[in-house]
Amino acid sequence: MGEWRGERQARDARIAAGRAHADGKIVPAAAVVDLLEAILRPGDRVCLEGDNQKQADCLARGLSACDPEKIHDLHMVQSGIVLPEHLDVFETGIAKRLDYSYSGPQGARIAKMLYGGQIELGAVHTYLELFARYFVDLTPNVALIAGVSADRDGNLYTGPNTEDTPTVVEATAFKNGVVVAQVNEIVDTVPRVDIPGDRIDFVVEADKPFYVEPLFTRDPAAMTETQILIAMMAIKGIYAEYGIKRLNHGIGFGTAAIELLLPTYGEKLGLKGQIATHWALNPHPTLIPAIESGWVKQVHCFGSEVGMDRYIRERPDIFFTGADGSLRSNRAFCQTAGLYACDMFIGATLQIDLMGHSSTITQSRVAGFGGAPNMGSDPHGRRHHSHAWMKAGREGQIVGDPALMRGRKLVVQLVETFGDKLVPTFVEKLDALELARKIGLELAPVMIYADDVTHIVTEEGIANLLLCRDADEREQAIRGVAGYTAVGRGRDRAKVEALRARGVIRRPEDLGIEPLDADRALLAAKSIKDLVHWSGGLYEPPARFRNW
Amino acid sequence: MGEWRGERQARDARIAAGRAHADGKIVPAAAVVDLLEAILRPGDRVCLEGDNQKQADCLARGLSACDPEKIHDLHMVQSGIVLPEHLDVFETGIAKRLDYSYSGPQGARIAKMLYGGQIELGAVHTYLELFARYFVDLTPNVALIAGVSADRDGNLYTGPNTEDTPTVVEATAFKNGVVVAQVNEIVDTVPRVDIPGDRIDFVVEADKPFYVEPLFTRDPAAMTETQILIAMMAIKGIYAEYGIKRLNHGIGFGTAAIELLLPTYGEKLGLKGQIATHWALNPHPTLIPAIESGWVKQVHCFGSEVGMDRYIRERPDIFFTGADGSLRSNRAFCQTAGLYACDMFIGATLQIDLMGHSSTITQSRVAGFGGAPNMGSDPHGRRHHSHAWMKAGREGQIVGDPALMRGRKLVVQLVETFGDKLVPTFVEKLDALELARKIGLELAPVMIYADDVTHIVTEEGIANLLLCRDADEREQAIRGVAGYTAVGRGRDRAKVEALRARGVIRRPEDLGIEPLDADRALLAAKSIKDLVHWSGGLYEPPARFRNW
Repeated sequence: MGEWRGERQARDARIAAGRAHADGKIVPAAAVVDLLEAILRPGDRVCLEGDNQKQADCLARGLSACDPEKIHDLHMVQSGIVLPEHLDVFETGIAKRLDYSYSGPQGARIAKMLYGGQIELGAVHTYLELFARYFVDLTPNVALIAGVSADRDGNLYTGPNTEDTPTVVEATAFKNGVVVAQVNEIVDTVPRVDIPGDRIDFVVEADKPFYVEPLFTRDPAAMTETQILIAMMAIKGIYAEYGIKRLNHGIGFGTAAIELLLPTYGEKLGLKGQIATHWALNPHPTLIPAIESGWVKQVHCFGSEVGMDRYIRERPDIFFTGADGSLRSNRAFCQTAGLYACDMFIGATLQIDLMGHSSTITQSRVAGFGGAPNMGSDPHGRRHHSHAWMKAGREGQIVGDPALMRGRKLVVQLVETFGDKLVPTFVEKLDALELARKIGLELAPVMIYADDVTHIVTEEGIANLLLCRDADEREQAIRGVAGYTAVGRGRDRAKVEALRARGVIRRPEDLGIEPLDADRALLAAKSIKDLVHWSGGLYEPPARFRNW
Repeated sequence: MGEWRGERQARDARIAAGRAHADGKIVPAAAVVDLLEAILRPGDRVCLEGDNQKQADCLARGLSACDPEKIHDLHMVQSGIVLPEHLDVFETGIAKRLDYSYSGPQGARIAKMLYGGQIELGAVHTYLELFARYFVDLTPNVALIAGVSADRDGNLYTGPNTEDTPTVVEATAFKNGVVVAQVNEIVDTVPRVDIPGDRIDFVVEADKPFYVEPLFTRDPAAMTETQILIAMMAIKGIYAEYGIKRLNHGIGFGTAAIELLLPTYGEKLGLKGQIATHWALNPHPTLIPAIESGWVKQVHCFGSEVGMDRYIRERPDIFFTGADGSLRSNRAFCQTAGLYACDMFIGATLQIDLMGHSSTITQSRVAGFGGAPNMGSDPHGRRHHSHAWMKAGREGQIVGDPALMRGRKLVVQLVETFGDKLVPTFVEKLDALELARKIGLELAPVMIYADDVTHIVTEEGIANLLLCRDADEREQAIRGVAGYTAVGRGRDRAKVEALRARGVIRRPEDLGIEPLDADRALLAAKSIKDLVHWSGGLYEPPARFRNW
């Protein structure tokens, strides 16, 4: 018959041991190490909340200060590897195995540690995939999370950066796990309940507010005319052409330029209300002019963005907010929205190969792709139509019964032919493949596979891969917009001209766009200060973006 | 600059109007119509919680009793169309437009009403897709939900059938919507908080407990030897062959037979611990013997199942449960788990065409497919490997660079060549296409498209579609397991034998299975009573399944 309450009893014992260091559920910051050593067991699966933005940094420091004699061989299962402490624990032996999604700053160190055998890598997931595994085979034994405030019963207010927290807590608390929340302050009553107290076992009053990174702020002052040209082509040749209303933008300068062109170039084209009305997007500061000009109907957010809190509070018709007035973000639902409810994902990449496979991985970094693999994939389970989706589906259907025709998500790569330091974006072979070979990864770190990409936009034009009839046409369509890179110079000129004649490739002039019109004067805001002005002073940019 | 608080102010006004019929948040059942007429506005998007199982039936009756002069042209956005009242509102004009996912009993009536123009159909979604749209373009203005109990602050206990509720409430409450919960009783303190009270505006004490349907109970007494043979082939030829540990089963008798064969046939094959350990599945009673025999490590559930509550409470190491002891289900997360964290989806269908497209739609019913399109699709965003997934990927990769190889989800159709009343399962053309033409649907109601299906299992054998090199091979592989149906008789015998020689088709004897061994004696439980016995008396089947 077996033993059916072993996990449950072990959880109760962990909590009882932790209570020795707590006053009810409340634990002082000084007792974090004691608490963690009391509730953790060697080999545990642990989610140390490292989100895309918000970091449970007080708990991260505590974990890294634990005694490796007592706590070792942990299996870390968390979205973000962001803080140095997230990797320190692998050096001391506290942690051993890693399953994650995204690492901005720590990508190079992860690659070195993988190569040196200090980390046993599970996989580099897309966010929603990692969340899915929390409920199946990567359920955490202990979750270490972060919020703004909690009451003494553990009712938690996450503030605008709700992000991954509800998902992590649900998987842990309902499967015999222990949940520890660090908060900036203990209060009598939380402004709203993001997580009910009966799912939170311990509350640590942190020594300082949790760390959060402004990852989605793009300074308009840094936008180039090439980016503006590409943005104009995307608006006229894709947004308008397909009538894209529901979408997700990447985090690069190209899509930020599009946001800033909507109230100017988009307005001139008469597109207001016709495109870009419903968004799955973080609260990008560069979206403020479009919001203020009445382009945007609503935005659901993965997380928040530093400095946007007051603006969001004053725009409750646009954003998802609580009765307390602040943003309620939710990465799991926003990723689901990006997958199934958006007609287009448009973003940038570092490398694209001859078939259209793309990756942001270079030979020395294992950074992960966050949400891109999920949102940049065509969901075969989708069963609702839209104008944009059906048009793409018709373009993409080469063979088969038209009665069985289904639509396609638009997955658009927006790149300059040469990236930073004049490194070519178009390559014969992705660096990711070499990295996979060197480190011995089971699966090459491809961000978006070729079969999901529908369009590539560069300063040379738009390649519509849906219209390509075979692999050779596809290769020539990609070469045909690859500019003066080796890949671009390797084009078959006759074939490229034939593709252009069919509209598979479209140059700026084919779209009625004069490259000389791509001027910074078109940007609705030319600086961070302009964004503050557009917001009526509600947007409060972090110090590093202020130069006035 | 626009008006940024219109929605928020409208919400506040609705709540104020509703308060006239409430004592605090509490509304007597007799005042439901008054409440709904106070908070609803013509044209509203409304989610009337009709889940796959749990029904907000008191609120459904209330809505259908509203005055169509006051409340009309509603846009209903809900998972399930299950109760007669869900369609009555379209006859009276209270509702006009419909977006939904699943309709068991009402499929025929929906088809008639669509044909008669009484319903303006948006789309028939897969669950997760509809949830995604709640956050983008189908955000409800009003949500009418159901729970077991609530306190006077609105803190809600859903009981084991949490299902869609957290998702519906999150989309509504944080986007200026009004949330009304019907509960079986008002209590001083809820057993656990499934939804915090600050997201619930009104609590209606219903006149009787909410309706819930035992949709996932299959009586072992009704299982046939053909189903047992098919189940044996699936276990030996697919589960064992690929080493499937993480999976979702459909709700038919075929997969229920597999559940009952694990502790007998599976045990004999030495597969315990090697297959079927981690599940995204409702608490199927037929899984009890496998759980009791130690096959199952954990199960995450979409919803619950009538009669399974006590059993689940006593098996906290297997199921996700709250501190109160009862199941915490969650359809959104379990669908996400089925999409991204399972290596296999295996289920049944009514029709399969020559390419492998399938549908459960007949000419007179628009039932919807619930979760099948989502879980029965290959998620292109997946980036973690597993043995099963990589093996399927290798089999399916015909061309391309092996360094770019990725895995494949196994999507298996488990069918008898002839279904109920000897109607052939294999057809030249799906009835769904004719229905789509007749009703004028934009998209044919295909359950799973051919490109996602990897295997078809019938009593004649297994067709592995991954190994087919072209459309002709695929057609012959399907014909080759289609038995004496017209499609089966239309096979090219030489081609089918060639496919068999290559292992694309495998007969029972190719798998070392003797059809005469497919005996009911192999079932771990032969009746509902046996299941009760296996559960130690904890499973309490509904009356209709009791015949002792």
